[in-house]
Amino acid sequence: MTDQKRLRDYEIPIGTLPTGARNAITDVPGVRVGHVTLDDGPVKTGVTAILPHGDNVFREKVLAAYHVINGFGKSTGLVQIEELGTIETPILLTNTLSVGTVSEALVRYKLARNEDIGIAAGTVNPLVLECNDGYLNDIRGLHVRAEHVFTAIANASEDVAEGAVGAGTGMSCYQLKGGIGTSSRVISIAEKDYTVGVLVLSNFGRLDDLRIDGQPVGRRIIEHREQATRPEPDKGSIILIVATDLPVSERQLKRLAKRTEVGLVRTGSYIGHGSGDIAVCFSTAQRMQHEGVAVHPLHMLDDSHLDPAFRAVAESTEEAILNSMIAAHTTVGRDGHVRESLRGYLDRGQEKQ
Amino acid sequence: MTDQKRLRDYEIPIGTLPTGARNAITDVPGVRVGHVTLDDGPVKTGVTAILPHGDNVFREKVLAAYHVINGFGKSTGLVQIEELGTIETPILLTNTLSVGTVSEALVRYKLARNEDIGIAAGTVNPLVLECNDGYLNDIRGLHVRAEHVFTAIANASEDVAEGAVGAGTGMSCYQLKGGIGTSSRVISIAEKDYTVGVLVLSNFGRLDDLRIDGQPVGRRIIEHREQATRPEPDKGSIILIVATDLPVSERQLKRLAKRTEVGLVRTGSYIGHGSGDIAVCFSTAQRMQHEGVAVHPLHMLDDSHLDPAFRAVAESTEEAILNSMIAAHTTVGRDGHVRESLRGYLDRGQEKQ
Amino acid sequence: MTDQKRLRDYEIPIGTLPTGARNAITDVPGVRVGHVTLDDGPVKTGVTAILPHGDNVFREKVLAAYHVINGFGKSTGLVQIEELGTIETPILLTNTLSVGTVSEALVRYKLARNEDIGIAAGTVNPLVLECNDGYLNDIRGLHVRAEHVFTAIANASEDVAEGAVGAGTGMSCYQLKGGIGTSSRVISIAEKDYTVGVLVLSNFGRLDDLRIDGQPVGRRIIEHREQATRPEPDKGSIILIVATDLPVSERQLKRLAKRTEVGLVRTGSYIGHGSGDIAVCFSTAQRMQHEGVAVHPLHMLDDSHLDPAFRAVAESTEEAILNSMIAAHTTVGRDGHVRESLRGYLDRGQEKQ
Amino acid sequence: MTDQKRLRDYEIPIGTLPTGARNAITDVPGVRVGHVTLDDGPVKTGVTAILPHGDNVFREKVLAAYHVINGFGKSTGLVQIEELGTIETPILLTNTLSVGTVSEALVRYKLARNEDIGIAAGTVNPLVLECNDGYLNDIRGLHVRAEHVFTAIANASEDVAEGAVGAGTGMSCYQLKGGIGTSSRVISIAEKDYTVGVLVLSNFGRLDDLRIDGQPVGRRIIEHREQATRPEPDKGSIILIVATDLPVSERQLKRLAKRTEVGLVRTGSYIGHGSGDIAVCFSTAQRMQHEGVAVHPLHMLDDSHLDPAFRAVAESTEEAILNSMIAAHTTVGRDGHVRESLRGYLDRGQEKQ
Repeated sequence: MTDQKRLRDYEIPIGTLPTGARNAITDVPGVRVGHVTLDDGPVKTGVTAILPHGDNVFREKVLAAYHVINGFGKSTGLVQIEELGTIETPILLTNTLSVGTVSEALVRYKLARNEDIGIAAGTVNPLVLECNDGYLNDIRGLHVRAEHVFTAIANASEDVAEGAVGAGTGMSCYQLKGGIGTSSRVISIAEKDYTVGVLVLSNFGRLDDLRIDGQPVGRRIIEHREQATRPEPDKGSIILIVATDLPVSERQLKRLAKRTEVGLVRTGSYIGHGSGDIAVCFSTAQRMQHEGVAVHPLHMLDDSHLDPAFRAVAESTEEAILNSMIAAHTTVGRDGHVRESLRGYLDRGQEKQ
Repeated sequence: MTDQKRLRDYEIPIGTLPTGARNAITDVPGVRVGHVTLDDGPVKTGVTAILPHGDNVFREKVLAAYHVINGFGKSTGLVQIEELGTIETPILLTNTLSVGTVSEALVRYKLARNEDIGIAAGTVNPLVLECNDGYLNDIRGLHVRAEHVFTAIANASEDVAEGAVGAGTGMSCYQLKGGIGTSSRVISIAEKDYTVGVLVLSNFGRLDDLRIDGQPVGRRIIEHREQATRPEPDKGSIILIVATDLPVSERQLKRLAKRTEVGLVRTGSYIGHGSGDIAVCFSTAQRMQHEGVAVHPLHMLDDSHLDPAFRAVAESTEEAILNSMIAAHTTVGRDGHVRESLRGYLDRGQEKQ
Repeated sequence: MTDQKRLRDYEIPIGTLPTGARNAITDVPGVRVGHVTLDDGPVKTGVTAILPHGDNVFREKVLAAYHVINGFGKSTGLVQIEELGTIETPILLTNTLSVGTVSEALVRYKLARNEDIGIAAGTVNPLVLECNDGYLNDIRGLHVRAEHVFTAIANASEDVAEGAVGAGTGMSCYQLKGGIGTSSRVISIAEKDYTVGVLVLSNFGRLDDLRIDGQPVGRRIIEHREQATRPEPDKGSIILIVATDLPVSERQLKRLAKRTEVGLVRTGSYIGHGSGDIAVCFSTAQRMQHEGVAVHPLHMLDDSHLDPAFRAVAESTEEAILNSMIAAHTTVGRDGHVRESLRGYLDRGQEKQ
Repeated sequence: MTDQKRLRDYEIPIGTLPTGARNAITDVPGVRVGHVTLDDGPVKTGVTAILPHGDNVFREKVLAAYHVINGFGKSTGLVQIEELGTIETPILLTNTLSVGTVSEALVRYKLARNEDIGIAAGTVNPLVLECNDGYLNDIRGLHVRAEHVFTAIANASEDVAEGAVGAGTGMSCYQLKGGIGTSSRVISIAEKDYTVGVLVLSNFGRLDDLRIDGQPVGRRIIEHREQATRPEPDKGSIILIVATDLPVSERQLKRLAKRTEVGLVRTGSYIGHGSGDIAVCFSTAQRMQHEGVAVHPLHMLDDSHLDPAFRAVAESTEEAILNSMIAAHTTVGRDGHVRESLRGYLDRGQEKQ
């Protein structure tokens, strides 16, 4: 992956806010990401795990919220987040038909680490989100198995591989190759710095809609292609994970989650019917102990200070989507289906200049 | 099951509306229910399948809606129902930690019957709901496997076994034995008869809260018990499935789903914190073809005629919960945990009279 | 009002939790209630104001949430509560067609007290809730005017008049006289006492559905009546205001608000189609300054401790509804329409014993 | 208004779909729009009425839904739309502090035309939406009165004046002059043509965010300005009304309403904290009689055909916002506050070419 590129390598800045050190979701202290990539002929899929912090998330939950941009999707674990406002497992991403498998594996993972689950401590709420990689991947083969989940979690680190990796291995975006992308922004509120990071699993859109910083790059690609581009229905999805260390409430986390749609639309999407577009947002600022605390002391940012955070979510999302496409290499999947990399077009565009 | 009893055997009528022929969810034409019961020492769990009709539900979807009464639960498949207003698989019930397993099995079941899923027809949205049977069942053992799902679906018939069967095998209700219960009502609107049927998976409540037709039966049981009743936190759940042949829209189905809470409260629940109480409601009146139809001709009941349907949901729910308890036999589960049958108390009450 | 009665005068206890000193919403420290009653021939209406605290609520907002039990209603001010989680005006109750008038008056009230509104401080969100008193009141006459709003607020005190007063003057409940009722409960969490208080504006239901502590009192009244009782469609509404000094978040306040439905159902309601049933819940535990605070230090009760609060809401709601009926005197309104007082039936029932 | 311009006069096409004949919401047959403009020194406000059809909307309701993009707003009438899925009055737009006044006037308007309201026909749900025009307008003066509402409704016609008219008289958008704008698209589904029209009341945004067809026009304006542009907090709002003759359900109308956010974001908004951004969408395809119909025959588009409608909403919204700015003349309001017209910048830009 040494020669991978990102959007900033093309000197296209998105927005006005500074990025974090890695320009990744892991700029939020404690957050780590791990992948398992299944890439073998028609098998083009995998698992990606996002860990809110390095300790047992079941014991020390983080405040969270979600927002359904468009609900044609099969993600699981959301109902409890709405009711209780917390996440208690790593966040797992995979292909649509493997949600059940990954969910069971995540339960097994938690059972092994918490002997009281199911005995004295209630059960556990596995959070698994998905996109449909069936264009490139033999999704009917259900190739993701429990061990891939365990490995993805074990692989978690602060370095986030992007593109056709993990759950992104077989994803398509704007009829090009999609996958995993990430970005971050640093904002200053009341003289203190906070970080907002976004990781996306991109798998949506039509090429003629693609825009980069407002420019209709998708239409230009179509014009310069030798062969015709077949318009496809917009049947994909996008999963958007937002992490922050801002001291915000569950209600405010939902407000943050909603601003992912701004970044998504800026890349050209009109939120097609066939899309399962779901954003989950969590804060690492304060941990909720599983038991033993009657009254939690908390801090809550005044809503009048949220605007920089909203901008940060929008900018990070826009850039994370573009990173997911630029980092992804051209992929040949099942039945000879091909998704080209956006990078090829950008590199050729640069050469011409 | 020949000697099983139901609430009506005690001449306690609930409400004023007439029941259907079976007084069961299967009074709605086409609806069928199947169970697989796992009852072996500390293994006290299972699977229950509700089939909206006898054909391929993926090809011919039914309009549906859901309502979360309290969201401390792990059910899956709800997001898409909210967006698209349809159900496209049988509805599966099981224990909390087996949702992933059952979800994968339901995907496999659908893949086997629809060769285009994942290729040309998009994916499929498995609908799986759950309660935590960990008090009686070795829930950590994850004893439910894929074949149990296939068998539960294959077992579906119009005769609905109640009590400690299927997903209800290990459930507790009001600190007594809970499980599967069902009831129905027939209403007449604009001179036409329609049926509303409810099936519950009951697993909630404290004994001192239990009421039957308004009478504080739970408190009386406690008073007449020889040993003291330990108050437990209300950590359970209830899943409520409502079927009808009324011509109602997705919006109206949500209104119907909400009236399950009326029946639930009438049995004494105050909707405790620890409860995952979710209602799903579907109508068999009109089928939505998976493809090939651009404009669906539909019928929609005027909302001013919904009151009888609301009453029917409330009455059926109340009676279904009580049926689930009366039909369930006293059960000894893992670690010697015992849940007595409500029937024993009712029978003794009758003898005294 | 010296001879007014309440439910406890009949020695019918609701639930098991102790009440506050006044058994009223004003047991929550700082909360006050004021009425203006318009009772002149066919004019049977009014205004009720609930003040969260004694200071300027626009400057020092309180955390709040709402829950729509059934949305056939015309209340205003709810959208902003969902987004921002705060209340910034007194809560006003009136008849359905006077919401606009009261809303304008509330704006004028706030403009007079805050010179920066509309100039530098944004606008203000008037919160006005309503029921339809058109059976007894000449609602088409729009008799509520701005001065009634100012007077209701000015009248606010810790003594809460109940029954046919304020916004409750012309309301009907279970085909008897309804109106304003209140009740409270004291709970102990982590060795500290907290109060939950409820005030209702009751205007819903059919007599044959009325229950008191589970007993079918409505059916008994019908049986003992000399003239026949005409079943009416359930076209009314109920507004439920919950106050507490518990340190709870906006999300948790919504959970509390939802438990009003438990108390409502316990009195016999099945939540009819024609009902606008809306609950608003606020906490006085912590105030949110309108400006000048970047990060608010807060306290949040752990959700596992919410069950007593849920019970308190359910019990207070049930008793508040019954108080609203018992305190209300028999009323003759427009066109000779009559609503009898429940008290008459209860008093006669006592005499017989 | 003879010399007013619209976006298309600058040969900037938005999207790819054809517009309707007027490129206005009134291209949807039957829809009409009326304004009353109050423009007198510091009084810069007004009323705009959108009529779904030419008959009594209370007697013949239209299916409708709404979507709150950001809920820092004071609109009224939304709760009942969510529950019942219909609109029963004209849609009124005005300034934030006049919602109560307009609401009362709309009730009076309906009372005058329906003698049974409040007697036998229930009440009526006035639908009034708002933005805060306090930067230019003496909003504290509450200058909108009932007669302005009656006149706005009476003025309704198929010709829609844009810019600083009606409710838009005092609105600001991207720190320039905003107000009323409209646009439409024609789509073909299953060989039949349908129209989607949007009308906006625009009052949001920061100039440096403004984009036209993806181009950062706002930043360019700032660069070419002689005086510095002071960044302002994004405290405004936008109301978005979508009309269509597509045969769609309440659920689908909500899906359409959500796509207004796409058009809004395309003009540069990141949906700031201080914004009350609300979309209401209705269909004229089928009318719901107030009474007398037990079962409504309806038609519902299959969701798989919604993508063109989603694009149409996005494109119409984007263009309507830009029209609202281009049509609006430079306005000097209270305390010498000025909002320049975008048109001036666009005209100068053309001259340079």
